Amino acid sequence: MKHDGLRKPSEDLTRILAENVRGFRHAKRLSQEELADLCGLHRTYIGSVERGERNATLSTLETLAGALDVSVIELLSKRDLNDEV
Amino acid sequence: MKHDGLRKPSEDLTRILAENVRGFRHAKRLSQEELADLCGLHRTYIGSVERGERNATLSTLETLAGALDVSVIELLSKRDLNDEV
Repeated sequence: MKHDGLRKPSEDLTRILAENVRGFRHAKRLSQEELADLCGLHRTYIGSVERGERNATLSTLETLAGALDVSVIELLSKRDLNDEV
Repeated sequence: MKHDGLRKPSEDLTRILAENVRGFRHAKRLSQEELADLCGLHRTYIGSVERGERNATLSTLETLAGALDVSVIELLSKRDLNDEV
């Protein structure tokens, strides 16, 4: 099973990450720009994560999780809509 | 907080991923080469993940998890030594 093209994460996991980054960011009343600055990432990168367009690396997931005061596991876990964010 | 050099995941998370990939691989009695084939990855890549030398992307984490029949969350979660693997 050789992969040729660039890999992409599943839609499901990408959507979970996108929703969680946005949800935790809102909960901390941060703009995308403010979160980007906290992470040392470009502002547009945060937008693209929240649109589900990124194949983030482990280190970037950790940087995002750290800035949002959550764990990487929480960042990748499906949240119940009425979960307290 | 601008990051200049290449990011690296924390030692902690890298070790958790390394131990889990090896543990789940052993549990399925797969060699590194067999797991690499299942994932469409190079054999040496599996070795480098298990030595904690990789900053894996989300899609690669999903590919590994799928081949090992676990979730990405399980792949990244610290396991108790006497956890049934």
